[in-house]
Amino acid sequence: MDTMGRHVISELWGCDFDKLNDIEFIEKTFVDAALKSGAEIREVAFHKFAPQGVSGVVIISESHLTIHTFPEHGYASIDVYTCGHLDPTIAADYIADKLGAQTRETIELPRGMRPIEVKKAQAL
Amino acid sequence: MDTMGRHVISELWGCDFDKLNDIEFIEKTFVDAALKSGAEIREVAFHKFAPQGVSGVVIISESHLTIHTFPEHGYASIDVYTCGHLDPTIAADYIADKLGAQTRETIELPRGMRPIEVKKAQAL
Repeated sequence: MDTMGRHVISELWGCDFDKLNDIEFIEKTFVDAALKSGAEIREVAFHKFAPQGVSGVVIISESHLTIHTFPEHGYASIDVYTCGHLDPTIAADYIADKLGAQTRETIELPRGMRPIEVKKAQAL
Repeated sequence: MDTMGRHVISELWGCDFDKLNDIEFIEKTFVDAALKSGAEIREVAFHKFAPQGVSGVVIISESHLTIHTFPEHGYASIDVYTCGHLDPTIAADYIADKLGAQTRETIELPRGMRPIEVKKAQAL
């Protein structure tokens, strides 16, 4: 397996409180995002916090997708990391759309190649 | 909960093949790393690949720790992301030491504050 990977980090702002606080919605969105990007799902683990917030991960054969939500701030912190030929932006775009993010800051890091450098940064 | 977080990304090279391929060792190392950093563990999910390689995550109240190993390349791809007052470098340092990494490239990203920028980069 080649070490080369693409790691997309997205900061989503202005998301809907109820969506960010709905663990079933978040988990389904992440599973769907992984499948849409062509990933093979290996492990799924999500957790609901009190009084609000959801954290979770989908481990895929090609690395992982994670989320941490802060409904009271309309904020979701997203990582989509893929190795192989998958395009992590497919999943990241899908998640941002499903959460109704009004503002999105994204960077992409190449992984498994040294040195680490930020490949691109974009604010949408 | 404050959105402010610290995300340490470490690329570990020159690690021992057998350690990188030992799911029980990797899982224990990650659980111990989380506890040493003062985190509260919520979910633990690790997966062993054939013919080699381990992926996994520890979801903590304060965000997550993830790993993907490529034993045949002596490479491990590490993320330690903490919110609150935890110091993610404690866990990242512990993991690098336990895996016997000979070379380590690390960057730290602030999360939950816009815009995203790389806070520091270091090669050890």
